[in-house]
Amino acid sequence: MTYQKFVYFFGNSETDGKNSMKNLLGGKGANLAEMANLGIPVPSGFTITTEVCLLYLENKQYPDGLMEQIDEAIVKLEKENDKKFGDSENPLLLSVRSGARVSMPGMMDSILNLGLNDDSVAGLAAKSGNGRFAYDSYRRFLTMFGNVVLGIEYEDFESIIDARKKEKGVKLDTELDTGALKELVEKFKVLIKKKTGEDFPQDPRKQLQMAINAVFNSWNNQRAKTYRRLNNIPGDWGTAVNVQSMVYGNMGETSGTGVAFTRDPASGEKRFFGEYLINAQGEDVVAGIRTPQPIETLKEKMPGNYATLVEIYQKLEKHFKDMQDIEFTIEDGKLFMLQTRNGKRTAAAAVKIAVDMVNEKLIDKKTALLRIEPEQIDQLLHPMINPDAKLEVIATGLPASPGAAVGKVVFTAEHAEDMAKSGNKTILVRTETSPEDIGGMNAAEGILTVRGGMTSHAAVVARGMGKPCVAGCGDITISIKKKKFTVNGCTINEGDFLTLDGTAGNVVLGEVELITAGVNDDLKTILEWADEVRTLGIRTNADTPHDASLAREFGAEGIGLCRTEHMFFGDDRIPAVREMIMAEDEYSRKKALLKLLPMQKSDFKGIFRAMEGYPVTIRLLDPPLHEFLPDHNELTRKLDKLRSIDGDRDKIQQLKKMLARVEALHEINPMLGHRGCRLGVTYPEIYDMQVEAIIEAACELKSEGINTVPEIMIPLVSHVKELSTTKKNVIRVAESVIEKNNVELDYLVGTMIELPRTAITADQIAMEAEFFSFGTNDLTQTAFGFSRDDAGKFLPYYIEHGILDHDPFAVLDQDGVGQLVKIGIEKGRSTRADLKIGICGEHGGDPQSIKFGHNIGLNYVSCSPYRVPIARLAAAQAFLEQDNK
Amino acid sequence: MTYQKFVYFFGNSETDGKNSMKNLLGGKGANLAEMANLGIPVPSGFTITTEVCLLYLENKQYPDGLMEQIDEAIVKLEKENDKKFGDSENPLLLSVRSGARVSMPGMMDSILNLGLNDDSVAGLAAKSGNGRFAYDSYRRFLTMFGNVVLGIEYEDFESIIDARKKEKGVKLDTELDTGALKELVEKFKVLIKKKTGEDFPQDPRKQLQMAINAVFNSWNNQRAKTYRRLNNIPGDWGTAVNVQSMVYGNMGETSGTGVAFTRDPASGEKRFFGEYLINAQGEDVVAGIRTPQPIETLKEKMPGNYATLVEIYQKLEKHFKDMQDIEFTIEDGKLFMLQTRNGKRTAAAAVKIAVDMVNEKLIDKKTALLRIEPEQIDQLLHPMINPDAKLEVIATGLPASPGAAVGKVVFTAEHAEDMAKSGNKTILVRTETSPEDIGGMNAAEGILTVRGGMTSHAAVVARGMGKPCVAGCGDITISIKKKKFTVNGCTINEGDFLTLDGTAGNVVLGEVELITAGVNDDLKTILEWADEVRTLGIRTNADTPHDASLAREFGAEGIGLCRTEHMFFGDDRIPAVREMIMAEDEYSRKKALLKLLPMQKSDFKGIFRAMEGYPVTIRLLDPPLHEFLPDHNELTRKLDKLRSIDGDRDKIQQLKKMLARVEALHEINPMLGHRGCRLGVTYPEIYDMQVEAIIEAACELKSEGINTVPEIMIPLVSHVKELSTTKKNVIRVAESVIEKNNVELDYLVGTMIELPRTAITADQIAMEAEFFSFGTNDLTQTAFGFSRDDAGKFLPYYIEHGILDHDPFAVLDQDGVGQLVKIGIEKGRSTRADLKIGICGEHGGDPQSIKFGHNIGLNYVSCSPYRVPIARLAAAQAFLEQDNK
Repeated sequence: MTYQKFVYFFGNSETDGKNSMKNLLGGKGANLAEMANLGIPVPSGFTITTEVCLLYLENKQYPDGLMEQIDEAIVKLEKENDKKFGDSENPLLLSVRSGARVSMPGMMDSILNLGLNDDSVAGLAAKSGNGRFAYDSYRRFLTMFGNVVLGIEYEDFESIIDARKKEKGVKLDTELDTGALKELVEKFKVLIKKKTGEDFPQDPRKQLQMAINAVFNSWNNQRAKTYRRLNNIPGDWGTAVNVQSMVYGNMGETSGTGVAFTRDPASGEKRFFGEYLINAQGEDVVAGIRTPQPIETLKEKMPGNYATLVEIYQKLEKHFKDMQDIEFTIEDGKLFMLQTRNGKRTAAAAVKIAVDMVNEKLIDKKTALLRIEPEQIDQLLHPMINPDAKLEVIATGLPASPGAAVGKVVFTAEHAEDMAKSGNKTILVRTETSPEDIGGMNAAEGILTVRGGMTSHAAVVARGMGKPCVAGCGDITISIKKKKFTVNGCTINEGDFLTLDGTAGNVVLGEVELITAGVNDDLKTILEWADEVRTLGIRTNADTPHDASLAREFGAEGIGLCRTEHMFFGDDRIPAVREMIMAEDEYSRKKALLKLLPMQKSDFKGIFRAMEGYPVTIRLLDPPLHEFLPDHNELTRKLDKLRSIDGDRDKIQQLKKMLARVEALHEINPMLGHRGCRLGVTYPEIYDMQVEAIIEAACELKSEGINTVPEIMIPLVSHVKELSTTKKNVIRVAESVIEKNNVELDYLVGTMIELPRTAITADQIAMEAEFFSFGTNDLTQTAFGFSRDDAGKFLPYYIEHGILDHDPFAVLDQDGVGQLVKIGIEKGRSTRADLKIGICGEHGGDPQSIKFGHNIGLNYVSCSPYRVPIARLAAAQAFLEQDNK
Repeated sequence: MTYQKFVYFFGNSETDGKNSMKNLLGGKGANLAEMANLGIPVPSGFTITTEVCLLYLENKQYPDGLMEQIDEAIVKLEKENDKKFGDSENPLLLSVRSGARVSMPGMMDSILNLGLNDDSVAGLAAKSGNGRFAYDSYRRFLTMFGNVVLGIEYEDFESIIDARKKEKGVKLDTELDTGALKELVEKFKVLIKKKTGEDFPQDPRKQLQMAINAVFNSWNNQRAKTYRRLNNIPGDWGTAVNVQSMVYGNMGETSGTGVAFTRDPASGEKRFFGEYLINAQGEDVVAGIRTPQPIETLKEKMPGNYATLVEIYQKLEKHFKDMQDIEFTIEDGKLFMLQTRNGKRTAAAAVKIAVDMVNEKLIDKKTALLRIEPEQIDQLLHPMINPDAKLEVIATGLPASPGAAVGKVVFTAEHAEDMAKSGNKTILVRTETSPEDIGGMNAAEGILTVRGGMTSHAAVVARGMGKPCVAGCGDITISIKKKKFTVNGCTINEGDFLTLDGTAGNVVLGEVELITAGVNDDLKTILEWADEVRTLGIRTNADTPHDASLAREFGAEGIGLCRTEHMFFGDDRIPAVREMIMAEDEYSRKKALLKLLPMQKSDFKGIFRAMEGYPVTIRLLDPPLHEFLPDHNELTRKLDKLRSIDGDRDKIQQLKKMLARVEALHEINPMLGHRGCRLGVTYPEIYDMQVEAIIEAACELKSEGINTVPEIMIPLVSHVKELSTTKKNVIRVAESVIEKNNVELDYLVGTMIELPRTAITADQIAMEAEFFSFGTNDLTQTAFGFSRDDAGKFLPYYIEHGILDHDPFAVLDQDGVGQLVKIGIEKGRSTRADLKIGICGEHGGDPQSIKFGHNIGLNYVSCSPYRVPIARLAAAQAFLEQDNK
């Protein structure tokens, strides 16, 4: 009877696998096979496929035929190595390692020296002529097997060793002699019996089987699951198991072991980069007890081996056409390659290597573009904490806006602004931020909040400003009165130095050194290549001329979202805005609006000028009016104070009136309340003023010879009649301004699609809208019924427990929200074929979401200025990946 | 050249139209033609079609050929009547009336006596031999024409008459002699010239044209638009214009006029019912200056005319197969029918007439079912204000729950409960209600709130209880301190009597008499017929055994929504609920839950017993936990008070802890927050307790021989994994309880579809759900992005200005929310063909929404007990109407 092939052999005599079989053999197994095929010396061995893993996990037993195939492979191994498994004279010893389709470092420990037992340890001693080495290997094997396979705490073994060392009066393991090691072996076997109720298995085949099972089961341990979730690795891939004959780098001065990269993984520089130890095993290099030597010194120590190593690494890089991360062992003068894989690298290195390899004609531009994780580019655009710095992390929150910042703690926006005036750098620490805090956020180096998620006000604004932000750090308790905050037993006072790592979400005590990479020529080259291939437009979300210019430098081709309300918060504007809100009739409201008109006009002129030649989408007023009024508690406090000192009557009357207005505007669910076009419909004069400012600005620039096509966007439309009603007014005002200015001006009127009903009725909406912009933040809120301000109470739990794969506010939910976007696009284009469609939510800067957007036919995405380079690369990849299908 | 036919003649010589042409000729025109066809005497005339109206309104001019056709028709009229239009000897006089497809009473005044001018008035005087009659007709015509066509205030004419009467020292118009009337005519002509700048048009053709235009334009006056909106009449129907030769009931003692119904429109009794006046015109009957006589007395006064009238009305009822509302005039002994139409009737009459006519074999059951407006039935189930009562309406809010109630004003739930204990009836007046008020709402006769819409807490709970509620009455200002409220300048103190009309939304001062119809045998018959034809199941939303029994009496076939949280508010439960919420770890939480378990179990036993044999869908805990804790302000007050009197330390500590918990649970948008299955996922022990209670209850009843199939419903699912996670626990607990009780029990696990994402991914959801229940309240909130608690700030404006046709919380939005439901059904059945699907939002009791639900394939709707009869009829009509297609 023949069974499916479950076991793939690799070695000198024969090799069954190859590089292209990664899905079946895992990355490690496939690359070992490939090296064998290339004639590169590897310790022979075999790979048990990922299919077996899945079958085993499902049925809790091996498929028929597997044991036979393993036995056959072992026979081959015995022949190749001229050793026998479990032999008491010349034993074959094995290593057992996991190996998934992609590298999952740290997912599972290796098991080395498998095959040792009370008999074969004697054989190893005889054959190596080194009793101490044999018993040291045996006690190491017992520890690994006991820990990894049998689940006994590592410390249980350690404490036995420690007791033994104390007894012997020595400090290092290496000072224990053979006798002591023999005693340890006995004690370890007793420990295993005690902890598991079973004797340590002397049968090597049983050892092997148990080790294989342990590797399979490790696929579903918590660590692995978390890693997979964080790295978007599906659970149904499974892991392969690699069983290899042992080679030893610790057999004396002609032995050694090392790891190396074919290029510098930090800078990307083209040079052989790595380290090694003479007379050591792999784990010693990693453990850091002895200091490894730089790889170039191996040339002197073992010139022959070094030459071979150089030859091999060059061969490997040429063969795999990518920077390799290799592991090698020299056993008694003979070099073995243990592993090769594409090396991890910093963002800077990824960019440099990609550009260099194109120049070296090793890869083409397309491959270069696909080699860089768009998300990585972010690292290059923000300061980061020096990786060598020692950190005292006192709390962790959400990585809400990337980069790192150092400053003195302040608790109010005003304080941050004052400090900035006197040249002080600050970190603004708030329970949550509100639009009133914008000035202070701008003045601070970084923002830390107790509440709020990835799309909270703090997060969105900070990303827009390119400032680091750690949000939703719920462990913090702020006492504004006492000017301090406490977190995890630590108290930080106003003025204390703090460092934020917005990329990792860490809050670090004190003043830590930061480094900045910046946009270099290599990155520019990559982004130019990206622009050559991408078809998706990249715009930016920008509310100020400064942001617009910045985004343009990063390569934005227009503004996809200009939020007019941010302009309302300036010190010179807010009084007029409040006057408008407090107005008791249309006349007074219009009077207040007239004061705002020239300011808004000058804002728009600045933005249009910065974006000359590119489209600018301006969203009319969106947030509920109460956001512009002072906080209820603050007002009550002020009022109580004034009353208690028998203060100015007029002032009291005025505050009372404002308090009444704040109370009247209070909403139970402001997210779903009186905002967006609902304001424009019920108070048309507000939008009229904004349209007048926009069109006047464009007309005046036009007479200066500066061309712009304003795209006026009506927010929060749910029903087409809201749009048609508002649009009628927009056109009325716009036409009258154009006529007055006597110029020709094109403009578009469109809408945001940010509510499910709007997406579902997009065919009706498109009859009125000249463009769509999907506001995927709000669309996510309403499609899921998740308030982004409140989801912090359950969303982290959901992600931790795998109910959701991602925070849907960070990564577009393709199954649900994405389907609404798709329906919206299809229905919209069904009634207006040339509809211009973009997205302007936070997802516009997320690579996965950008690719999805490309595939469903968006014309552009719009993201914060600092995400523009990322979006350019992601858009290029989207095109290339689609092309490959 | 021939034109489209714009003018349809009716008379003795020929008649162009017929009854089936209502869309073209309007109801009045088509029925006049039909009467002429039946040989019933009508004043001859012609109808200008609704098509002309639309053309005129669009182009502001007549279509070619219209004037010619009108002229031809006038020639025919002149011939039939042997009179000449505008003639100075024997003038043809005309009436001009609007007439839309359906009757729109009061939309426009009629213009009578058209054709009179300075010449023809003499002819009329000569021909009638009555100069006073002629000039009285002329001055009436001038008033009507001046008012309706020229837009001059009616009062301007009246004040001239009043001056004249004072001068003459008389009181009644009828006391003015011919000379005085002639003077009035002259003065009226001067008034018209002064007000319009033009002379009164003497040319009868010009008069006619202006009158026709006025009727067309009246289609778009505010009154007509409002009426159409309230009655769902499309704006693109237009109105026809009916031009008829005048007949006069005021030509002496052998003349008269009257209106009558072929059956009693109040009771439905089969008897000729109406009234008339001798020597009077139609307007006199309506004006109420003279008291009309009951129709039966005409038999004595004019036996011949009466016999003819009886013959005609019987002919008409048989012909139209429905109760008719007729108008007639007797001119000098000759009877003319001016109008016939299906008569408006009360709910009671509608039911009785429908049943009687089936018994009389005039119509079949199907027709009978289609004749009754489901919404009307509501009137029969609730007390209503005696229609004869005089009302002082002091405010108007939303008609949130139908029926009327009288009671003394109270401002707190506790007060309502206390008053009820002492036998006092109360009206509970609150800014808004919360679940804590349930006891008081139950104790009160009716509920009045300042805030909140049709699906606010107050509205939903009141409808469920069958209690009248007026909600969102924003003009009211409550002062709880002063125990009073003010509204529109009126102050109402605690203890004052108030009457609420929840059907109309009126707040009425004082104690008004109420009447109740009740479910009679005729209604039972109709509902039985409905049950024979309908295919849609009708369930009820019920949280208590009492509601369940009530709904069963009304014909409910199971419970579609049993909200478990309402059970949490009982005085005996809330301490345990709060203990559960305050618990600091899972152990303490479980301890508190254990206290709730027996209470929940007994609740479920009661409900299962009441619904024996029918399915019961139980929704697991849905609202956010903070709803069960005391209000923040209330707690702060209590705490301040205790501190100020240096109160019990432990108590203070306890309150401080609770306040901290309230603050921790505070949410910015609770609607989109930590609620529904999000609670079940993060605190599985809560759902575990509820499932244990449900299944235990069912098992114990089973051993008593009472069968039930609990349907356990997981609320607010957005992602299938929330459902699969929760479902796994439900099954685990349920199976263990079943095993413990050692009985066989079937149960289902399903979910609510109340978020857009869930509808969009219903194919995935249905893999886990055994049933769907569409929660269209929340689905409407999230699809539109409307918070039902806050929409009061813009929704009334939207409806008033036609941006939305209906309140989407009352009538399902078929274009948007309905499409989500449709997608949900289709996708759900694509992966589970036998999926049981219902809706349980407020829309389950709305006839239009029920019909939509039938058409898209729901298995059932679920509504509050009092809506069950309405739903039964609407479901039958849905089937019959679908059948007709």
